[in-house]
Parts: sequence; structure tokens; C-alpha cells
Amino acid sequence: MADWTKIDETVKRWIQEAGANIRASFAGSLSIQAKSNPNDLVTNVDEETERFFIERIRTEFPGHRILGEEGQGDDIKSLDGVIWIIDPIDGTMNFVHQQRNFALSIGIYENGIGQLGYIYDVVHDELYHAQKGLGAWMNDTPLKKLDPVPVEKAVIGISATWLVDNRHFDQNKLVQLAKDVRGTRSYGSAALELAYVASGRLSAYITMRNAPWDFAGGKMIVEEAGGIVSTLSGGEINMLTVNPVFASAPGLHDDILKKYLN
Amino acid sequence: MADWTKIDETVKRWIQEAGANIRASFAGSLSIQAKSNPNDLVTNVDEETERFFIERIRTEFPGHRILGEEGQGDDIKSLDGVIWIIDPIDGTMNFVHQQRNFALSIGIYENGIGQLGYIYDVVHDELYHAQKGLGAWMNDTPLKKLDPVPVEKAVIGISATWLVDNRHFDQNKLVQLAKDVRGTRSYGSAALELAYVASGRLSAYITMRNAPWDFAGGKMIVEEAGGIVSTLSGGEINMLTVNPVFASAPGLHDDILKKYLN
Repeated sequence: MADWTKIDETVKRWIQEAGANIRASFAGSLSIQAKSNPNDLVTNVDEETERFFIERIRTEFPGHRILGEEGQGDDIKSLDGVIWIIDPIDGTMNFVHQQRNFALSIGIYENGIGQLGYIYDVVHDELYHAQKGLGAWMNDTPLKKLDPVPVEKAVIGISATWLVDNRHFDQNKLVQLAKDVRGTRSYGSAALELAYVASGRLSAYITMRNAPWDFAGGKMIVEEAGGIVSTLSGGEINMLTVNPVFASAPGLHDDILKKYLN
Repeated sequence: MADWTKIDETVKRWIQEAGANIRASFAGSLSIQAKSNPNDLVTNVDEETERFFIERIRTEFPGHRILGEEGQGDDIKSLDGVIWIIDPIDGTMNFVHQQRNFALSIGIYENGIGQLGYIYDVVHDELYHAQKGLGAWMNDTPLKKLDPVPVEKAVIGISATWLVDNRHFDQNKLVQLAKDVRGTRSYGSAALELAYVASGRLSAYITMRNAPWDFAGGKMIVEEAGGIVSTLSGGEINMLTVNPVFASAPGLHDDILKKYLN
């Protein structure tokens, strides 16, 4: 049996080290747009960070498999055994344009069940994390169990992409929701928006298309904080494919499903 | 003649002090939603912060007038003389729901001309500021003069409110823009979004309805960073009324005006 508490300590140490490397990749200047070729910058740091984790996992946990956004891990076809699902930088566009509002995301699953989840807001040094059955934290502060939220008091994370005509979804259902809630926000990082749901900063987060590395860490953390993560029809998320993702405080999840999404 | 450099030093000292008070108003807990009556909390801190500035301005600069969001200042009907335009907490909803993504905003205008501008991201201790003719800074780092940005590489700040049917504007013009740009974001604080435009984190910010206290500080800072701030038709902003506000990097401002807004 895996000793999750011991693995947790190791992951946290690695995350701190990787975060320091990412921060060091920034120049001191705020001339963000002009800095360099945006795509080169992101490729380097993305790939280096993913490799940082892969090398350490291979050495320390040789039986574990790795699913990484940059494709340097394993070719994963099943959820058997222990799988690390890693997004070295979630919120690529923010990383390039803003040097903030991005996160390192890791979910560790055993036979499809989330055991450990991490979302690290690198710039603000805020680590949201969870261990199955033990709860969720932001750094050392436990996240309070989420209370039910009514639609009219909800602030939800949703990209404008899903509120204008698009080829994935009839936007009119979400337009009505956007008009009924207290407010909408869009930060451009699925991982951070899931961390915000877990910590009550957002009451829900809705997207049409997320890959496993976008939500693997966040799903764990939201669930351990008492929230619900499903597809847009309320079904179970498939950890191996792209999914529509609907993460929410309790109560609100059911209300939105019934009144807007079905 | 006012000694703006000396006034600047005084304002910065007050902002640091006011920011410390606001931070002290937070509990250590992350149980944000359940904390207290959201409206009470915001009213207290808003009003106390505005009063903090009014008392000091009255004593230190008795000839100056004050336009504050909370209405404790003067009844301003003209732009004559020196006017402080203050939003003690811009991004009220974020302040309550998130305890972040809000800002203290101050613009100091003389006969309608911006002389000093401040946007203080209280939680991250980041002070964006500008002095007429001398440039703009984030803390001690000068903001680089903004380069022109093409539409397809722009990340713009725009609330979902203006992308769904609403009673202030035909959303279809903005929907097409939202589809053509690289990305959209929405942070829920006009002041912070203007600070993001000034620092290149966003290439533009568009809103239908901003009050003077929402944009007085930001307009100064964006302009000193080489950006352009106008109404949605490209006209001059009226510092005494609610305006539609369109702040942008150069080049992009003209392109969006011509291709989308006219």
C-alpha cells in the first residue's frame, strides 16, 4: 500500500523547488509583452518543469505512471495503478502575458481514485492541496467545508468563449445563468479557478473543454472541500479524455444542473 | 503651485497605512462566504477607508476637494482646482467573496488634468502609480512604454455583462471582438484591470459603465504608460459622470475603434 502522507511530503518539496525555478525564469522587468517570443518562453519552462517531475518520479516511485500535458510521460490507456497527472503550467497565456494567474497542477490517482491533489499559484506562493479523506488546505490553513450557495449569490468562473456562439455548446443556456448570478469572472486558468471554487472565492466554475491535466489536481481539492465536480450533464468525469467540467459548491450544483443545463 | 512630488510622498504613506488597516480587517480563516454579512463588512471597510483619507486631506491640504465613492466628500460640480477622486475599495464583490482582486484607487486632478494616479492591490502589496510627465511604476519598477498590439494577439478585460444581451449596448459588436482576440479575462475590478492594461498584462479593458472613482487613478497610469483611455466612441472621458471606458495599448485602440466599435 502506498504511504500517501509520505508521498505528500515529497511532492510538496518538489513543488516548492519547481516553483522557485519558474519564478527565477522571470526577468525583474515588467515589460511583459515585449519580453521574448511568447511561444518559446512557454515551451521551455513548461517542458523543463514537466521533466523536473518526471525524472524525480521515475527515480523515487519507479512503479508509478505519468500523464503530462507536454507528452514526456507515459502513453496512458487505463487508470490501473498509480498515475500522476501533471500540468506544469496551467494558464499558458497568462504565464506569457501576465507572469501571474497561472498554476502548477498535479493529481495523483490510484486505480482511478484521487488520492492527492495540488494546485500551486507559483507567483503568490499559495499551495492548494488535498489528501483523500483528510480534507483540503491552502498552505497550512484548512479550507472550510463549502456551504450551499443560491444562484443569485453565486460568483462563477466562466470564459467568454462559452457565452458567445461557439461550436461546442448552445451558449444560450449559459447566457441565462450569467445573467442570473451575482457576477462572473474569468481568470484563464482552469486549475486556479478550481482552487478558487475549493476556497469559496468562486461558487462554481464551468468549462466545455478541459483535459485531465487541467482538472486532475483541482477535482481532488474541490471534492475534499465539500464541492462537487461533474460533467455538464451531471455525469462522472472521465480521467483519460477531454471533458466538459462543472465544479460547484453544493446546492448550487443541483440548482444549475436542473434550471440551466438540462 | 502644488508640489506634486511632495504630495506624492504623502499619498503613498497614507496608502500603505490604509492598506495595512484593510488587511487587518481580514480574519485568518479562508471561510470567506460564511464570514459575516457581506454587505456590512464592505460598508464598514469602504467607509472607514474613505474617511481615513478625507480626514487627512482636510488637515494637510485644506484647499483641495474630494470626490469619493462613499459620498463622504464634497458635492463636486466642476473640475476647478485640485480634486481627489477616491474609491476606497474598487471591486467590492471580490473584496467580500474573495478577499483579493480588489484595489484602492486614487486620482488627483488639477483643473481637470490628471497629476497623480494610484491603484493599490492591497493583498499583493502592489502599488501602481503615475505622475504626470514622469511616467508610471509598479512599486519601484518603471512600467515600460506600451507597444502597439494587433487584435489577434490581444488579451482583453471585458465583463460577461457586455457580451450577453443588456440594456446599455448592442453586445454583438463586442461578441465579434471577443471571438477575434487571443483571449478575454474578467477580474471584477475596473481599477485593477486598468492597472493590468498599464503594465501590459492586458492589452485593453472595455466597460460600458464606470464612475469617476473607478477610472480616475487608472486613466492617469495607463496614459503615463503610453496607453490610450477614451469613451467607446473614442471621445474624451468626462471626469464628473458615469462613462463607457475603453483603455488600450496604442495601435490596438485605433483598430478596435474602427473595426468593432464604430
